[in-house]
Amino acid sequence: MNHYPASIKNVIRHLNKLPGIGLKTAERLAMHLLSAPEPDVFELSRSIGELKKSIRLCSHCFALSDGDLCRICGNPSRDHSLLCVVENQADMVAIENAGAYTGVYHILQGLLSPMDNVGPDDIRIKELIAKIEKGNIAEVIIATGTNVEGEATASYISDCLARFSISITRIASGVPMGGELKYVDQVTLKKAMEARHAV
Amino acid sequence: MNHYPASIKNVIRHLNKLPGIGLKTAERLAMHLLSAPEPDVFELSRSIGELKKSIRLCSHCFALSDGDLCRICGNPSRDHSLLCVVENQADMVAIENAGAYTGVYHILQGLLSPMDNVGPDDIRIKELIAKIEKGNIAEVIIATGTNVEGEATASYISDCLARFSISITRIASGVPMGGELKYVDQVTLKKAMEARHAV
Repeated sequence: MNHYPASIKNVIRHLNKLPGIGLKTAERLAMHLLSAPEPDVFELSRSIGELKKSIRLCSHCFALSDGDLCRICGNPSRDHSLLCVVENQADMVAIENAGAYTGVYHILQGLLSPMDNVGPDDIRIKELIAKIEKGNIAEVIIATGTNVEGEATASYISDCLARFSISITRIASGVPMGGELKYVDQVTLKKAMEARHAV
Repeated sequence: MNHYPASIKNVIRHLNKLPGIGLKTAERLAMHLLSAPEPDVFELSRSIGELKKSIRLCSHCFALSDGDLCRICGNPSRDHSLLCVVENQADMVAIENAGAYTGVYHILQGLLSPMDNVGPDDIRIKELIAKIEKGNIAEVIIATGTNVEGEATASYISDCLARFSISITRIASGVPMGGELKYVDQVTLKKAMEARHAV
């Protein structure tokens, strides 16, 4: 590292701060950038520089967006009476990639976690309630994760929404598709047995 | 990927062009950059943007440098009569990291490879000969790799330099340190047997 000129060392140091990029990888990437075509390197630099400037949160669902409304909230062909509550953008993208959902989202931007001092006021629960108070929502699907924080948040949200005459559902949990029973953990198997259904 | 706003998609697309960075990793890095402190992201962008602008080749050894002379050529405490010939910057850095060399370098910027149409005029052999014609060099260590191109280049260079009254040496090849003989390939073992020395 000390044997590189300062501008290469700079790139290596900054790449090395990224998650999963060690010193060797950062060196390899910097060497690649040195020999890559000038416009490609410029575009990479520019796109990273622009990232924070042009990104804001959708005023409706709090997804990352480059306009006031994200593509999903701004799409009239989505079902705006069906609302899926997720923890973050990545979970929303995962559901979109599954391709089985045509409603809109509400992104909590976190989960309740008393251990980390995250309470109901620190995530977007107030905004969720306000959205339902306006009417127009027929069903809320709570799609937080199935870990402790996800379950606690789901349970808190369903309590908050109990007073509305809408249907509140939770995504199913059970044995993952393609999974062999012997490799599935006990808690998941117990859940799967409890949630068994007629075929 | 289609479920991200354009500016995130841009970053993902450009990161994904880097070697060893797949789509999933590029997505993960872009998400990290979104939540990273603004100055860090700006510095990363700036350092990549500056990389190509400020880097040039050392006029003496052709290493990457940010001045006319690289740190090694500009260092009066290095032994300027000892010249190590390497293929590229990475090989030079590897030798520097080994910490056993106090001379200067000559970077060929490639190896002879007739299959890829790389001949003696395409790499810095003329410049090497010109450097030795000036005098002042006592020993040339040929430290190209031990693959076909590396060996061919080493042999070509030693032929070119035969007319000078300087010592021309080649780095030793043999069993790597810490290696078990049973895992060493036949050619390396043959070389190691031939180059055996008295203990």
